[in-house]
Amino acid sequence: MSNPLQEAFNRTAYPITGHGKRNVQVLKEALDAYEGELDSDVYGAGRLIEDFQGKMAGILGKEAAVFFPSGTMAQQIALRIWCDRRGIKRAAYHPLCHLEIHEQRGLHELHGIEPVLLGGKDRLIDLGDVKELDDTIACLLLELPQREIGGQLPDYGELEAISAYCRERGIALHLDGARLFEILPYYRKSAAEICALFDSVYVSFYKGIGGIAGAILAGDAEFMERSKVWKRRHGGDLISLYPYILSADFYFEERFPNMERYYEGARELAGFFNECHQISTLPEEPVSNMFHVHVKLPKERLEPLLMELYEETGVGLTHYLREKGEASCYFETSIGDRYARIPKDELRRAFALLNEKLAAAL
Amino acid sequence: MSNPLQEAFNRTAYPITGHGKRNVQVLKEALDAYEGELDSDVYGAGRLIEDFQGKMAGILGKEAAVFFPSGTMAQQIALRIWCDRRGIKRAAYHPLCHLEIHEQRGLHELHGIEPVLLGGKDRLIDLGDVKELDDTIACLLLELPQREIGGQLPDYGELEAISAYCRERGIALHLDGARLFEILPYYRKSAAEICALFDSVYVSFYKGIGGIAGAILAGDAEFMERSKVWKRRHGGDLISLYPYILSADFYFEERFPNMERYYEGARELAGFFNECHQISTLPEEPVSNMFHVHVKLPKERLEPLLMELYEETGVGLTHYLREKGEASCYFETSIGDRYARIPKDELRRAFALLNEKLAAAL
Repeated sequence: MSNPLQEAFNRTAYPITGHGKRNVQVLKEALDAYEGELDSDVYGAGRLIEDFQGKMAGILGKEAAVFFPSGTMAQQIALRIWCDRRGIKRAAYHPLCHLEIHEQRGLHELHGIEPVLLGGKDRLIDLGDVKELDDTIACLLLELPQREIGGQLPDYGELEAISAYCRERGIALHLDGARLFEILPYYRKSAAEICALFDSVYVSFYKGIGGIAGAILAGDAEFMERSKVWKRRHGGDLISLYPYILSADFYFEERFPNMERYYEGARELAGFFNECHQISTLPEEPVSNMFHVHVKLPKERLEPLLMELYEETGVGLTHYLREKGEASCYFETSIGDRYARIPKDELRRAFALLNEKLAAAL
Repeated sequence: MSNPLQEAFNRTAYPITGHGKRNVQVLKEALDAYEGELDSDVYGAGRLIEDFQGKMAGILGKEAAVFFPSGTMAQQIALRIWCDRRGIKRAAYHPLCHLEIHEQRGLHELHGIEPVLLGGKDRLIDLGDVKELDDTIACLLLELPQREIGGQLPDYGELEAISAYCRERGIALHLDGARLFEILPYYRKSAAEICALFDSVYVSFYKGIGGIAGAILAGDAEFMERSKVWKRRHGGDLISLYPYILSADFYFEERFPNMERYYEGARELAGFFNECHQISTLPEEPVSNMFHVHVKLPKERLEPLLMELYEETGVGLTHYLREKGEASCYFETSIGDRYARIPKDELRRAFALLNEKLAAAL
């Protein structure tokens, strides 16, 4: 599965993205914080799972929360329940929504729900788009930040207006908050304040939080009870989910307080990128810990240049490149624990060298 | 969630069932066997998951195998693929099949497949039942052993005849082998020999194997590729499944060689039960590590009697009782590591006392 760029990245002393390697140590470290005598959760019951669900319901400001093995499962189920409540099998979301591009059309194949793609591929859904929805839509999913366009966010006022409009029209509003905790520093709001604009919300524990896997879905008590039935149907009501729950809780406690630092790191790093020839970031000023880096150079020309850079500086910028047309390529960057550990001098030296190499490549 | 019988059972020095407590230590112990540097699986890829899948495909004698978070997910998907191949949305299984009684009708709600219940609730599906299936059935699921009736098994010859009949008629035959490893000592066959009678097979890693959760589905290569698409749709293609995979592999290595001992333990223990007044086991002679214990005494009368027994002998027979009509009750027993650790004298003393108490209760 590996490729030369990935291998070169893996050898660098200073990879700029993420918290660290995704290896078994991540779980070992979390488990070390718990006593072996702690009883397993059993089919969704037991203090271990109930306490965490209660804690997350509180943080998200919802009546109840349920832990799911994946966001894919949690979100399909959320949309299914809203569709059932309304008696309409249509849900609206962004053309680059996770459900549209990463789930093999599960929402349609398993739930018979027709997706309605709203807005354009290269921009956020806005109030104007939402006002075009007619009465045949049961619910609208908004993803904050919108990952596939670099992690962009609407102004908070726009979000409030969309929420108010949906409530007025009886359209359920669901938040794909896979990276919800990561946007709190930009909005200067609590998770509960943002979630109050939505009827249901999903959050992930292996993005900015850096856990192993797993998700929380939160909403009103009746909605969440319903979601447990669907969790069972999907095959997600595992006898034990504690390996994910304990690591979610452990890394939440460790990293939730760091979200401001990751956000500031992303802004600084985007600045370094934007000073380079041929490079621009999307968004130009990040609004979370993530952004996309676009380079006006074909992938096959940038790749060897990056590998040289990694070798010469020990700074690893990305382990992959994606083509964007014939003349450009891009990659995604998410800031975690690693970024702050890189000496600033090394980082500046690497970007100066990158800039030279890009200028020479023109 | 706890009740007095459960609490009394938890206090006993010698619980007769299972391997041990379901607590976090089970995972810690498995993880201790692996290096922290071991790379995580990532969305179904990576050596960690591929090696285990390859190993299990070999043991089950199938072209390929895929690890799933749950058997519920694996089996719905297996039946869905068989139904799609045949172009018929009907699948046959036992009236007490897991899909019928524990999955909230997921097969119908998510896949639109109509279940056809075959045979009687209190007996095994036999060749005669299978011969009554008409051409509108895409596949037949057989569960070996049939858990809800005490873990019974057909004669091997009958199994071969059912398999031959299904092949002749183009009915796909799927094995619910949640407890497949547990029946090998009785049949005196390898897992691959039994699986050769079936087109697809599911095995579990938290019954006799005693892992945390998780399942393997095995079949032909094209079938298994298809199953990965459905695994993604169900929300089961987690970024990392290694907590389940590593513990499955660890406890498989530890306990697969013990299946004969568990089976012999179950036969011995059933003998002790059958010597008592008012008690009979189902089956009378176990054919795996499990059986049911039926007692001709109302649950509310047996419960205090058992609690006394646990207190006086330290031997714990069951943590729960289920009513069966007004005058009887029953419970399930599965033999694991714990049984062999109980001193035989203590066990005999406990059964002698149980017999006295039951005689006095008449």
